[in-house]
Amino acid sequence: MSVTAARGFTAAGIAAGIKENGNPDLALVVNTGPRRAAAGVFTSNRVKAAPVLWSEQVVRGGAVTAVVLNSGGANACTGPRGFQDTHATAEKAAQVLGAEHSAGEIAVASTGLIGLLLPMDKLLPGVEKAAAELSEHGGEKAAIAIKTTDTVHKTAVAQGPGWTVGGMAKGAGMLAPGLATMLVVLTTDADVEAPALDKALREATRLTFDRIDSDGCMSTNDTVLLLASGASGIAPEHGEFADAVRAVCGDLARQLIGDAEGASKDIRIEVVNAASEDDAVEVGRSIARNNLLKCAIHGEDPNWGRVLSAIGTTSAAFEPDRLNVAINGVWVCRNGSVGEDRDLVDMRFREVAITADLAAGTESAVIWANDLTADYVHENSAYSS
Amino acid sequence: MSVTAARGFTAAGIAAGIKENGNPDLALVVNTGPRRAAAGVFTSNRVKAAPVLWSEQVVRGGAVTAVVLNSGGANACTGPRGFQDTHATAEKAAQVLGAEHSAGEIAVASTGLIGLLLPMDKLLPGVEKAAAELSEHGGEKAAIAIKTTDTVHKTAVAQGPGWTVGGMAKGAGMLAPGLATMLVVLTTDADVEAPALDKALREATRLTFDRIDSDGCMSTNDTVLLLASGASGIAPEHGEFADAVRAVCGDLARQLIGDAEGASKDIRIEVVNAASEDDAVEVGRSIARNNLLKCAIHGEDPNWGRVLSAIGTTSAAFEPDRLNVAINGVWVCRNGSVGEDRDLVDMRFREVAITADLAAGTESAVIWANDLTADYVHENSAYSS
Repeated sequence: MSVTAARGFTAAGIAAGIKENGNPDLALVVNTGPRRAAAGVFTSNRVKAAPVLWSEQVVRGGAVTAVVLNSGGANACTGPRGFQDTHATAEKAAQVLGAEHSAGEIAVASTGLIGLLLPMDKLLPGVEKAAAELSEHGGEKAAIAIKTTDTVHKTAVAQGPGWTVGGMAKGAGMLAPGLATMLVVLTTDADVEAPALDKALREATRLTFDRIDSDGCMSTNDTVLLLASGASGIAPEHGEFADAVRAVCGDLARQLIGDAEGASKDIRIEVVNAASEDDAVEVGRSIARNNLLKCAIHGEDPNWGRVLSAIGTTSAAFEPDRLNVAINGVWVCRNGSVGEDRDLVDMRFREVAITADLAAGTESAVIWANDLTADYVHENSAYSS
Repeated sequence: MSVTAARGFTAAGIAAGIKENGNPDLALVVNTGPRRAAAGVFTSNRVKAAPVLWSEQVVRGGAVTAVVLNSGGANACTGPRGFQDTHATAEKAAQVLGAEHSAGEIAVASTGLIGLLLPMDKLLPGVEKAAAELSEHGGEKAAIAIKTTDTVHKTAVAQGPGWTVGGMAKGAGMLAPGLATMLVVLTTDADVEAPALDKALREATRLTFDRIDSDGCMSTNDTVLLLASGASGIAPEHGEFADAVRAVCGDLARQLIGDAEGASKDIRIEVVNAASEDDAVEVGRSIARNNLLKCAIHGEDPNWGRVLSAIGTTSAAFEPDRLNVAINGVWVCRNGSVGEDRDLVDMRFREVAITADLAAGTESAVIWANDLTADYVHENSAYSS
C-alpha cells in the first residue's frame, strides 16, 4: 500500500520534533528509478505557501527524485524567509541522498499552522534521520507522518497488468475544490513520461479531489504529486493508466471526506439532467456549501427546501417549477414543490445521497461534502491552522 | 417607532393560529394616504416564494395600499396552489379593508418553513381580525408578529424636517447578500413618488441589507418594501430622503446581525485600499463566508492566516506579499507575513473588527457577518425552515 506499493520507491516517516507532542511529522519519498518523471497539481488559492511556490518550479522540469513532506507547520504567509527555509530543506535532502539528487529536482510539501516559520533546527536533522530510515516498506510510516488532525492515515492502491499505482493523502479540514487542503503523493512503477503523467493527473484530480468540498475553504498548501519510476518496465496505454490514477485519487478523496473534521455524515450530491457539466458542478458545489442544509443533514432532517434554496443561487440552466430532489432515494420534491412523504426518508447511516434533477439536459456530476456539526465548530475554534 | 412612526399608516399584529405555539403570526400594514406610492426589492434567489412573485407584480404598479405579512410558513416551493393562496390573501384583505383597496395593490410577504402550504382556514380569518385591530399605534405589534427565530423584534426610525421614515424587520438565519432572509417594511409620510422611492430604496439596500452575511445562505422570501403616504405634505430633496432611508436600513441590518441565530460575535469586515468597490465587496464576502475563520472568531483566536486564505480565493486585484490584516486594530499580518504580536488582540467583546488592506487602490467596503457556533448548528439541525 501507500507510496511504496509500486516498485522503484523508498519512503520513511519519522518524528523530527516539529510537532510539540512528539508525533511523527516528517516524511521522505524517494524515486529510485530508473525513470524520475513527475507531474503535480497545486492549490488555486492565490495566497500560496512557500513549498507550493517551490514545488511548482520543480515539477515544471518534469523530473522529481524525492519529496520531503512535513506536518506541524504550513510554512505559508512566512515571507522571503519561509521560501529560503523550503529551499534549504531541498538542499539538505539533496546532500544526504547523494550524487543522483539535486535540490532542483526535490519537491517540498508542508501542512499545519499558517503564519509560523518552521523550526529548521529540528527539520533539517529530521531530513537526515529520515534518509537513514528509507525502506521499500516505508510507505505506511510516511502516510502516518503527514497527518495533522486526521484521525487515520490514508493510502490507496490500484493494479494494472504488471504495474501499480499507489498513494497516500492527508487532509481533514479546509477541504474544497481547487483543491482540498491536502497533501497527496502518488507513485507508479509504470514507465510513463512527464507529459502523460500530467495529463492523467489533471484528468483524475478534476473528477476526484476537485469534487470534494468538506467546508468550502480553500487552502494555501494543497499539493498532489505523481511520480513514475518506470521500474516495472511496462509502458501502459494511456486510458488504462489514467483509469488507475483516477481510481487511486477517487479512493483517497473518499477517505478524506470520511475523516473530515467533526463530520458525522458524508453527503454524496449527484446533479443529473443538467444542461452542461459546468452547470452540474456549480449546482453541486452550491448545495455542498449551504451551511443551513449541512446543519439539517446533521440533524437527519430531509430538508429539501434548503436544497432548492441553494440551487436558486446559481446561474445554471433550470426552471424552478421543474426541479426534482431525492434524498436517499425518496423524491421529496417534485416539480419544485412537495413530492413524496419526507417521513419515508431514512437518514440513520453516515452516507447520505442527495439527487438534484435540473430537468434541463443530459449532463451530470457528483460532489462529496460533509455535514456541519458542533464538533467541527469546536475543533476549528480551538485549533489554529 | 416601527411602521406607524410616520403619519398616514395603521398597523396590527395578531395571532391567527398559523404558528402551532399560539404566538403572533400575522401583521397588517395599511397606507391611509393621501398618497399610496411604493417601491420594493426582493430576493435574487431564482427559486422565489409565491408571495415574492405576487408582490413583485404589485410593486411594479407603483402603488401599494396595504401589506399582509405572516410568519409560521414561507409559502415557498408550494406550486400553483401556493400562488393561489397568496392571491386569496390579497383578495381577502381588499375585501375587509373596503372600497379604497383592490387586491392588485396589496402586497403579501411570508416567512417560515419552505415546502408547506399555509393553513388558509386560519390565515384568512386572521386577516379579518387584524383589520379590526388596525391602529396608528400598531407598529410594535406588527413587528412582533413577523418574528420567526428572532429573539427580539426589530424597529428603527429616522426623522427629517417635518417627515419621518420608520420600519420593521425580521430575520435571524439564512442571512446573505441578495438579500438576507428577511421581511422589511419601511413607511414614510414624506411626499415621494414611486420612482424616487425605488431609487432611494435600491441605494439603501445595496449598502446595508446587501452587505450583511450571517451564514452565506440566500432565502426564497426576502422582501423589502418602502411605502409613502405623503401625509406630512412635505416633499424632501432626494439626497436628504435617501439618507434617512439608508439610516433606517443600516440600523435594521445591524440589528439583524446582532440577533443572528446562534451567533456569539458580530464581525465588521472592512476592506480598504481596493482597486474597485466590487473588489472590496468580493473580498469582504469571501472573508465573511469562510467557515474556518468564523470558527476561529468564535474561539477568540485572531487567526489571520484564514483571512489571507479567504482573500486568496477571490479574483480581486492584489499582490499576496503586500496584504495587511488588522484584527481589532492590531496589524497581525504585514506584507503577507507575520506582523504585530497576535497576543495583543483583545477579542472578549461581541463586536470584532477585521480590516483587510489590499494595497491596490483607494476603494473600500464594509461587510457584516457572524461567527459560527455550536448553537447555530444546534438551532439549524433541529429547526426545519
